[in-house]
Amino acid sequence: MHSERQLIGQIRRLCGGGDAQVIRGIGDDCAVIRQSKGLLQLVTTDALVENIHFNLAWHPAGKLGRKAASVNISDIAAMAGTPRFAFLTLGLPTDTQSAWLDGFLQGFKEVLDEHGVLLLGGDTVKSVEALLFSVTVLGEVAEEAICFRSGARPGDLILASGTLGDAAAGLAVCKGRLADPQGRYIALVARHLDPRAKVELGRFLGGSRKVHAMLDSSDGLATDVAHLCEESGVGAEIFADRLPMSEALRELAERQGLDPFHLALSGGEDYQLLLTVAEEDAAALVEACRAQLGEELTFVGRIVGGRGVMLLQGGARRDISFQGYDHFKAQP
Amino acid sequence: MHSERQLIGQIRRLCGGGDAQVIRGIGDDCAVIRQSKGLLQLVTTDALVENIHFNLAWHPAGKLGRKAASVNISDIAAMAGTPRFAFLTLGLPTDTQSAWLDGFLQGFKEVLDEHGVLLLGGDTVKSVEALLFSVTVLGEVAEEAICFRSGARPGDLILASGTLGDAAAGLAVCKGRLADPQGRYIALVARHLDPRAKVELGRFLGGSRKVHAMLDSSDGLATDVAHLCEESGVGAEIFADRLPMSEALRELAERQGLDPFHLALSGGEDYQLLLTVAEEDAAALVEACRAQLGEELTFVGRIVGGRGVMLLQGGARRDISFQGYDHFKAQP
Repeated sequence: MHSERQLIGQIRRLCGGGDAQVIRGIGDDCAVIRQSKGLLQLVTTDALVENIHFNLAWHPAGKLGRKAASVNISDIAAMAGTPRFAFLTLGLPTDTQSAWLDGFLQGFKEVLDEHGVLLLGGDTVKSVEALLFSVTVLGEVAEEAICFRSGARPGDLILASGTLGDAAAGLAVCKGRLADPQGRYIALVARHLDPRAKVELGRFLGGSRKVHAMLDSSDGLATDVAHLCEESGVGAEIFADRLPMSEALRELAERQGLDPFHLALSGGEDYQLLLTVAEEDAAALVEACRAQLGEELTFVGRIVGGRGVMLLQGGARRDISFQGYDHFKAQP
Repeated sequence: MHSERQLIGQIRRLCGGGDAQVIRGIGDDCAVIRQSKGLLQLVTTDALVENIHFNLAWHPAGKLGRKAASVNISDIAAMAGTPRFAFLTLGLPTDTQSAWLDGFLQGFKEVLDEHGVLLLGGDTVKSVEALLFSVTVLGEVAEEAICFRSGARPGDLILASGTLGDAAAGLAVCKGRLADPQGRYIALVARHLDPRAKVELGRFLGGSRKVHAMLDSSDGLATDVAHLCEESGVGAEIFADRLPMSEALRELAERQGLDPFHLALSGGEDYQLLLTVAEEDAAALVEACRAQLGEELTFVGRIVGGRGVMLLQGGARRDISFQGYDHFKAQP
């Protein structure tokens, strides 16, 4: 079997171009289709499979429903869009309990309501043994505000919202790989169980017209920045000592003798926004996000010429391109 | 567990209305969203799960790829639309062979190319043990041409394209439940393995402005007509001796002592179009389809007041509402 990247490359070669209405096909957070003058439609679809993407042993039904909606809406946020409509396909083993399903649907609906998204359809199928969900979300964005992955330029600063590595640490706690006897890391666990899509922040950033490139962090910084670089035809340097990490993550790492940088670089599912801006615009944008939305953006690296993502750590320099989460390698 | 209908009903109650841009949510072949003045967008999504919807023992990779595309495109055809863009989510067990995947993708792409549909994205995930595909197709239709399920009126004739029951008979041959020593029923098997979406016919019917209601036949006539009646708030009478059946199906039924009516009424996956028209328009429409497209439409029943779908057979009259295929009951 191929890796996920090889497989996506294979599918990408099948993708058609040459349609004036299609602004982007595969290769960004969403497909982008011209809807009317000045207005673009965004389409994203993501699937979650039991025992690959989630584990019912620790994932409550309602939180899982919330997450199924949030991870798709996050792709709309990553292009500075507004999510509008959702479609939910459910694959249910025959032993699925009605109460469980009620909880899942309620959580799913909660997140749609929080973002003003309407559920318009889907499909229900029987599954052999694993629960699975496939969600499609349609959104829209003004042509002047959209942020692609492909616009990064050498010299740009790379900014990240929030903190990185929390979701991966929370997952490790859920798995019992990291001890949490006093429930001290409940905030990290929440970041895994119920990530939030940064729709308001994405819209604000798109509206600023200062962002050159953006995506959401779903596969770990090392892989996410590598995607951005690949689409933009540039390289990047990441500064290890600048990675934004929560107090909880630092404390957990220290107590358990872990490298928090590893979680921040390679842990997936943070659903923060990663973006690049010209150096001269960065300070004002960071200040505006803090003042108007209470959102922190942290300078984590720089776009350079060439290729690849280099980590600069204590004088050392190593290539970390695509060393994040791979859906065909990782297991929960 | 609920039946598929109960589950869809539960999800339907979560669906939002109250948006001026939304023409239809759940309850028709596609969701319908206003795109621009006079132009509507159609959205449909369907999932296929190994050992529920297909069996690799008899389904070649290329045919399965074709079918994954066709069954979704058929939903666009059922609303008289033109399919435009497709999104493919693949759930692959780790032992999936590259050659198999190549064949699947090639078949999928063939059907997209036949209909001028562009593949714009999707998702690839690892699956525990079953192959699964989830496909979303976007299409468009002029507001004046769209055919909903909900427009049937008492007195309308019910017409069906092509022949019914062939795909179910073909599936029974694949399963070895019906013997086929000389490969005599290869055409029936092809109807199961590689159904064709009736896009051209759907567009022609929509363009005629004579169709009151339409859907595609995916769950067997008894269930499909029941859906149409439910959405239109009417009842129907089906005339058993008028059901269009292929010579191959009649011959197979006779040789093996089967009731071909059962296959035609309850067998799913024919992907023919079922439609209702005023009695005075029927003959001209049938003749136009035959002359201009070489497509046969057969008069199979009549819309009546009241509720339910009654089968009229040899003087007897029985309620067959929703006695077709249920994804939560059937097994391949």
